[in-house]
Amino acid sequence: MASDTTVLLGHGSGGQMMKRLIDEVFLEEFGNPALCAGNDAGVAPLAGFGATGSADSTDAGANADAPRIALSTDSFVVTPQFFPGGNIGRLAVCGTVNDVATSGAAVRYLSCGFILEEGYPMDKLREICRTMAATAREAGVAIITGDTKVVERGGADGVYINTAGVGEVAPGVNLSGAACQPGDKVLVSGTLGDHGIAIMSQREGLAFSTPVESDAAPLNHLIAAVMDAAPHVRCFRDPTRGGLASTLNEFAAASHVRIDIDEEAVPVRDAVRGACEMLGYDVLQVANEGKMVAVVPADEADAALAAMRACRYGENAAIIGEVLELAEGVEPSVRVRTPWGSSRILDMLVGEQLPRIC
Amino acid sequence: MASDTTVLLGHGSGGQMMKRLIDEVFLEEFGNPALCAGNDAGVAPLAGFGATGSADSTDAGANADAPRIALSTDSFVVTPQFFPGGNIGRLAVCGTVNDVATSGAAVRYLSCGFILEEGYPMDKLREICRTMAATAREAGVAIITGDTKVVERGGADGVYINTAGVGEVAPGVNLSGAACQPGDKVLVSGTLGDHGIAIMSQREGLAFSTPVESDAAPLNHLIAAVMDAAPHVRCFRDPTRGGLASTLNEFAAASHVRIDIDEEAVPVRDAVRGACEMLGYDVLQVANEGKMVAVVPADEADAALAAMRACRYGENAAIIGEVLELAEGVEPSVRVRTPWGSSRILDMLVGEQLPRIC
Repeated sequence: MASDTTVLLGHGSGGQMMKRLIDEVFLEEFGNPALCAGNDAGVAPLAGFGATGSADSTDAGANADAPRIALSTDSFVVTPQFFPGGNIGRLAVCGTVNDVATSGAAVRYLSCGFILEEGYPMDKLREICRTMAATAREAGVAIITGDTKVVERGGADGVYINTAGVGEVAPGVNLSGAACQPGDKVLVSGTLGDHGIAIMSQREGLAFSTPVESDAAPLNHLIAAVMDAAPHVRCFRDPTRGGLASTLNEFAAASHVRIDIDEEAVPVRDAVRGACEMLGYDVLQVANEGKMVAVVPADEADAALAAMRACRYGENAAIIGEVLELAEGVEPSVRVRTPWGSSRILDMLVGEQLPRIC
Repeated sequence: MASDTTVLLGHGSGGQMMKRLIDEVFLEEFGNPALCAGNDAGVAPLAGFGATGSADSTDAGANADAPRIALSTDSFVVTPQFFPGGNIGRLAVCGTVNDVATSGAAVRYLSCGFILEEGYPMDKLREICRTMAATAREAGVAIITGDTKVVERGGADGVYINTAGVGEVAPGVNLSGAACQPGDKVLVSGTLGDHGIAIMSQREGLAFSTPVESDAAPLNHLIAAVMDAAPHVRCFRDPTRGGLASTLNEFAAASHVRIDIDEEAVPVRDAVRGACEMLGYDVLQVANEGKMVAVVPADEADAALAAMRACRYGENAAIIGEVLELAEGVEPSVRVRTPWGSSRILDMLVGEQLPRIC
């Protein structure tokens, strides 16, 4: 950051630059336990007003039986706003539903804030809202509050949407990226890279023999199914910006472990693999919007996999790797084992690969 | 809306055009009881996981003792981002804290989403964050989750901030703009128009002998004090975009009443009054960011006023009007009684007066 005197596109990449911005500016200023836990949703207690509850109590959390909520937010600036497999509205609901759900919470309510550019077509706005409503219904959540700002032409690019989501965390549920243990298995709920490649194809006018569609989907029901099947599941995370690489590196660092994945076990569509080769992307760093990574104890891995596969959006789920103990003095890392017996370090994205992917 | 085929600046004004956009697009698509109540925060029940609670229950609200939350959101696009009396970060915390607090909730947690333009100075971003942190501390809330997006130069104007806030609503608290009753008194917590005129002065390079500063302030403690002093308070609302005119017209329509205010009783700083005359604004339609309107039963009005005046940010509070019964067949309205015995209708803003005021 010493060298970062201005904001760069890479600060929004989901990779190393963004991590630095978060650590050195946001955590530095806002730091509190829920935020510093570094998960996709902040989990924190309510006061749990009882008979003695008072509306101006500032002593949230004093009650051991107090309910806990999970809160998460995402702003969506994707371009173009309409793309194969969805639009910005579907992303805006799925992204936040999935982030809240990764905490193990039952997702209940969303807020929605629009920043609209003067001149944006009203029929497109209506179509985005219709998609948001349908996606919210699918996820079983309600949009209960909202806000609209309009900026002059040139002040935004069409429409930006922020959603925040609130979920309820059941007693005893304490999922965290810091909970991975040696021996655990790593699962993904389906094929990787679909969203990123769908957006890039649309943006660059690429045509594939099999069109690639965004995977944007609400995964809260899939997560609930995995929690039922694998009661000791350690954590979930949806590998959006920065892809699987960022997710696993975050887990490895938070849990102080090494994570190895088998390249051949990672499900990738042929068209996506081909596009990545052509464009020079590592599919493991490409954004997904309807995929979930889960880390589960080895003896619950098969049950978790079966649960994923039985869910809508989970038919291509796979066990792709495992958590290993760190050797003394070795830094946490993620390694990819190739089919030829070699292995390589899987790093987080350094700069920006696909700006405005979500 | 038949004629509104594109988004116009007026759709973000807080006035009639925005109301139409909300009614005809957002409520049409997203409609649910909490949203349609039309208050600044959506209030809705949690499931209240008990011994039998299950994380995938979708039956939120089935439990009569379930805790209720208030959720609100605002995006901030103010220009300039630094102005007399504050910056966009102070607005972003105060705006959402105040919106949540108007429901009578104890405000607990905030989310924060940044949309940054490539090239924005890092030291300004840090200053904004420092202000947000200090303001959150003052309000007694914690920022527990966040998101950062970066758009290319020209894709935004420096920095836009969304915050969403979660509060806890104590049992028995049911404040609503629809709860005003004939005979009730209308209070404001201080001088009107300060924020709007501070922004305009900064933007237009106007100089006053007494500088006008934004009033941006967190009012959750003031609201709690009024609730203690006036236990039957009907509702609160912070008169931001659209000013007092929008707030009172919303109350009148929701409660199906007439509201009369006395022009002379409305506290306005001399410099603000002068600027409004010069610029051709009605101060009652100018945005505030640190003022609260309260409607209370007549017999609790003096206690509510005393409570406001005893609070930080409430020293200029005043009783400014009253709620009247509607005559048969007459539409809800707001009237301003002048010192000369005449009266005029106070309408909501029609188009846009001060774009990007917050």
